[in-house]
Amino acid sequence: MKGVKGMKGERSSLTPSSPSPLIGVNTWVWVSPLTDDALDELAPKVAAWGFDLIELPVENPGDWDGTHAAAVLAEQGLRAGVCAVMGPGRDLTSDDPATTRATRDYLRGCVEVAATVGAAVVGGPIYAPTGRVGLLAAADRRTAIERVADGLAPVLAEAKAAGVTLALEPLNRYETSLFNTVAQALELVELVGDPALGLLLDTFHLNVEERDLPAAIRAAGPHLTHFHACANDRGVPGTDHLDWPGIRDALVAIDYRGAVSIESFTAENRTIATAASIWRPLAPSQDAIATDGLRFLRGLFASA
Amino acid sequence: MKGVKGMKGERSSLTPSSPSPLIGVNTWVWVSPLTDDALDELAPKVAAWGFDLIELPVENPGDWDGTHAAAVLAEQGLRAGVCAVMGPGRDLTSDDPATTRATRDYLRGCVEVAATVGAAVVGGPIYAPTGRVGLLAAADRRTAIERVADGLAPVLAEAKAAGVTLALEPLNRYETSLFNTVAQALELVELVGDPALGLLLDTFHLNVEERDLPAAIRAAGPHLTHFHACANDRGVPGTDHLDWPGIRDALVAIDYRGAVSIESFTAENRTIATAASIWRPLAPSQDAIATDGLRFLRGLFASA
Repeated sequence: MKGVKGMKGERSSLTPSSPSPLIGVNTWVWVSPLTDDALDELAPKVAAWGFDLIELPVENPGDWDGTHAAAVLAEQGLRAGVCAVMGPGRDLTSDDPATTRATRDYLRGCVEVAATVGAAVVGGPIYAPTGRVGLLAAADRRTAIERVADGLAPVLAEAKAAGVTLALEPLNRYETSLFNTVAQALELVELVGDPALGLLLDTFHLNVEERDLPAAIRAAGPHLTHFHACANDRGVPGTDHLDWPGIRDALVAIDYRGAVSIESFTAENRTIATAASIWRPLAPSQDAIATDGLRFLRGLFASA
Repeated sequence: MKGVKGMKGERSSLTPSSPSPLIGVNTWVWVSPLTDDALDELAPKVAAWGFDLIELPVENPGDWDGTHAAAVLAEQGLRAGVCAVMGPGRDLTSDDPATTRATRDYLRGCVEVAATVGAAVVGGPIYAPTGRVGLLAAADRRTAIERVADGLAPVLAEAKAAGVTLALEPLNRYETSLFNTVAQALELVELVGDPALGLLLDTFHLNVEERDLPAAIRAAGPHLTHFHACANDRGVPGTDHLDWPGIRDALVAIDYRGAVSIESFTAENRTIATAASIWRPLAPSQDAIATDGLRFLRGLFASA
């Protein structure tokens, strides 16, 4: 453990005695899919820069090994977050039992690896394949939401037993038509009524869908369990037109205790660039997204 | 002509003596595709609310008749804008001569109908089919831009002769990967170097792609020939988190002389909802997008 990590135990809330949340960064800033070798390279860099947490996407179960990751992160003094990735065939809105079963198995795998690496949260659009959109009649939307609730139920039971929260992420209108807004996501959260299901909000998506970002964060309130920070164009948070002091104040107001993690993507990897629609570099370098973003977020919360 | 239209001649610039630009609204707020009958119904409403201009999309040439539209608009005292709609097969980045020819013919048709209805501008993503995205290597991007320049050249000559400007619209990353930012669009504008080619900027797209919206407007400067206003979620301008005073001040600073037109879409029409990714109503009613938006924009420019 490095000296810079000494305070980490006290950084778990935004109370005055400990003003900074855990600040994290997603490995998608550099690589896709994540591998053991890539994590070996990234974890020491991320820890040396002063991050508290590293976010590990599970594109295909087995791309990286949980036990290995746990050892690497322990050595670097990093906490972990786990991201669920909803590719084609991962769909809890389906009426096909085999699809529901496969999706549950995938999410169970995410929960297991989260427990292995000590991650408190598995976050992502854990309802339908990213990019699948279409106009839904109100009744069809309700059916879809009920199927997601039913689909999640056994996974939530296992998550709770493992001490992991599933954080459902609303996405912008081009990536899903089921949950674009916090209000829509809260319909499901309230239907499920299980504290093992929370929300992951991401400034990039909020910027498109919410007319008032701080109000959306306050509406999520105690259900907010994970938070993604990036600029409105998915570049360095703080270099953009978002109202960062307002976002911070809303997080403080709801007594947010989760992590604030920088999620961006590299335009240098065709797969992830295409999946995330990143067509140009969003910063002078991918490292700058992490280091400049970290510096900005630390300063933002220090001045709360 | 109605009394409310009396001032219209003086609303063509943002100078102190005439603080309001022409304010318009797109018929996509209500219908798709536009027809003669729909225009007969919409034009009197739009004029009675106090709009100066109505924007007419050309989805398929012949959907509506230019001569008929010219008569309806004259009767209502409305100016016109024309929107080019880039569906599949309309593509100036193609190396297929038949595709280039067909796209030119389509754009020529837009210029002709613009001249017929007295529209100063044909605006839209006049380069490639909307929704076609993909990572472009720098060299391929340059080739695409050169093809667009070559493809536009004869159309621009005809536009100039007809007194019409083509206004190229950058779109957000989910709708195109060729021109997302003002800086990227200016590459083409500078390569072409013809005042018959200008820019159309839209607050919805700017919000996703530009870190500083007023700076992007100032960068467009004299090339800005048309402007689309809507909330960050494509609802009523002014009900959202955009910096509208900053946007207005930038338009004033560049001495913008074009129209400010409300572009939104109805979620009640499956075709246009799907094309524009509108999955929920964005206002209490479609009429409210027009009337509340008009009131807000008039107030915004009156307080410049």
